[in-house]
Amino acid sequence: MSEQYQVAIVGATGAVGQKIAEKLVERNFPYSHIKLLASSRSAGQTAKVGGHTYTIEEAKPEAFDGVDFAFFSAGGDVSRKLAKEAAARGAVVIDNTSAFRMDPDTPLVVPEVNPQALHEHNGIIANPNCSTIQMVCVLEPLRQKAGLKKVIVSTYQAVSGSGAAAIDELTKESHALGLSEPSPQVLPVKSQPKHYPIAGNLLPQIDVFEENGFTFEEMKMMNETKKIMSLPDLSIAATCVRVPVVTGHSESVYLETEQELSLQEIRDVLTAAEGVVLQDDPTAQVYPMPLYATDEDPVFVGRIRKDPVEKTGIHLWIVADNLLKGAALNSIQIAEKMIAQKEVSS
Amino acid sequence: MSEQYQVAIVGATGAVGQKIAEKLVERNFPYSHIKLLASSRSAGQTAKVGGHTYTIEEAKPEAFDGVDFAFFSAGGDVSRKLAKEAAARGAVVIDNTSAFRMDPDTPLVVPEVNPQALHEHNGIIANPNCSTIQMVCVLEPLRQKAGLKKVIVSTYQAVSGSGAAAIDELTKESHALGLSEPSPQVLPVKSQPKHYPIAGNLLPQIDVFEENGFTFEEMKMMNETKKIMSLPDLSIAATCVRVPVVTGHSESVYLETEQELSLQEIRDVLTAAEGVVLQDDPTAQVYPMPLYATDEDPVFVGRIRKDPVEKTGIHLWIVADNLLKGAALNSIQIAEKMIAQKEVSS
Repeated sequence: MSEQYQVAIVGATGAVGQKIAEKLVERNFPYSHIKLLASSRSAGQTAKVGGHTYTIEEAKPEAFDGVDFAFFSAGGDVSRKLAKEAAARGAVVIDNTSAFRMDPDTPLVVPEVNPQALHEHNGIIANPNCSTIQMVCVLEPLRQKAGLKKVIVSTYQAVSGSGAAAIDELTKESHALGLSEPSPQVLPVKSQPKHYPIAGNLLPQIDVFEENGFTFEEMKMMNETKKIMSLPDLSIAATCVRVPVVTGHSESVYLETEQELSLQEIRDVLTAAEGVVLQDDPTAQVYPMPLYATDEDPVFVGRIRKDPVEKTGIHLWIVADNLLKGAALNSIQIAEKMIAQKEVSS
Repeated sequence: MSEQYQVAIVGATGAVGQKIAEKLVERNFPYSHIKLLASSRSAGQTAKVGGHTYTIEEAKPEAFDGVDFAFFSAGGDVSRKLAKEAAARGAVVIDNTSAFRMDPDTPLVVPEVNPQALHEHNGIIANPNCSTIQMVCVLEPLRQKAGLKKVIVSTYQAVSGSGAAAIDELTKESHALGLSEPSPQVLPVKSQPKHYPIAGNLLPQIDVFEENGFTFEEMKMMNETKKIMSLPDLSIAATCVRVPVVTGHSESVYLETEQELSLQEIRDVLTAAEGVVLQDDPTAQVYPMPLYATDEDPVFVGRIRKDPVEKTGIHLWIVADNLLKGAALNSIQIAEKMIAQKEVSS
């Protein structure tokens, strides 16, 4: 009889928390019980997971007694407050916030890219930022084949990365496009003073600005990629832009490898890459698009072109569901990989 | 008494043709008469320009008798058919299609960048592609200061570049977002077999694909930039993406200069640049956005950052109204520059 695990979801009422619950059922994750945890405000409500009705409990230290895997997706503050408490009670925390990602003692893991990083942890595994995950899934197989020198990425990020209120804002503004003046209150950053419409517009700000002029989102992509790929000296720069798309992050990526690859070699590498699906047939107008990546597990890549001048330069277009591979799915895959690598026992 | 010019607008019923008429009035262009020309289908209709009612005439060779400036914006086929006829009758043709842009005998002009190219022409001046114009307005002053080695650009292009039917498609799909299934018929390319929704989506195809995997739109940006800037060996690559925005093209640009510039020097250069407005104050959440660039003349630039590794690397975010600086305005500015440079007489 295979082992079974007690699972907790912190932030169970949020968009990612709900996706984690759905995916645990869909993937037949070997759980014996699921604890749905949220703020005291939601405690006592019920939610259905896989045909069972669960009562949502308040996320507090004692709630983690007996838990094997705790998926955190309730914001950095909750993770900073409770992740170590959960780990101290024996749970493996898989944290979907930025709280521990750059902590040198916390592995930052995309299972297709750096599963070996799971060998050493202090009870907390960090799930990378959504836009980072889909990019490294494509970069890593190319790096393994030909090395990696440089990455320039421009993102086209969906509003669902900003939560349910942002989806609602885009939807309402879209329905009123050209008919009435929008009164934005959520995007680009709810807590900042200025808000701009997203429907019919683009917001070249995701998260707050750092002193160097890059946003925190851009710095996350740059720093997390270096950490996940163990390439501290990689030349990488990101420009992150919010676009009026509900779900599905897209990325225009330019990269330079160490050795030159032919177009066919690039295609072969990406066709064989775990978790990656090649959608690249220009003559048939086949390329990745966020509307069609929604609710899909893989990372889609297409529009592959060799740079016209730089022999080792490659241009790509990468799309994935930011709530799945960018968040919920990757978190569960981390747990599955730990089970497969026998890094945890129930 | 200053000279006055007879002006014709070919494609007067189209989005760009209408903008040309509006801007001629707004800028007090020294015209004595405007001829509105269109297909035989529209001939006989009337349209108001600057308080006067004009009857639309059929665009045919004889219509250009006595015309000094003929603004063409009715598609490449019309330009190929009629531009030389107009020029033979003494008109200076300012052509807003791709028909003559790469013809070595036809100047391709952005007045702020290469006005000297107007000195020699055979009666036809080509107006560059919209996405090219706004980029070279920013690249050229930086090149003049520090040289230019490399450009990587990812675009976020508005649907109005595809005409009124595309605007209509985006508007209808936006109003139905999440409520009913879209049935796209226009985008990404009307004449191609597959059509995809644009609301809530991104289309990484603008115009048809070339054999090298780049689209014709991407090749236009690459080739036109080299021609306008007289940099035949420039390392430049573009990825062009259609986004659910009505008007206003945006571009995430990475460039490498020959000499290193400080952030202050970059700002100073762009503050002084003709036709360019700096919108770059991250702490106050000030940066260019297409919704606010609509109906505005300048090219807006912001999100200026030095590359974290490459000393001569610069990241920028450029936004402009694709129907104005990207088309109608630049065409009129070409005529104005020719008058100022005394390249034409009435």
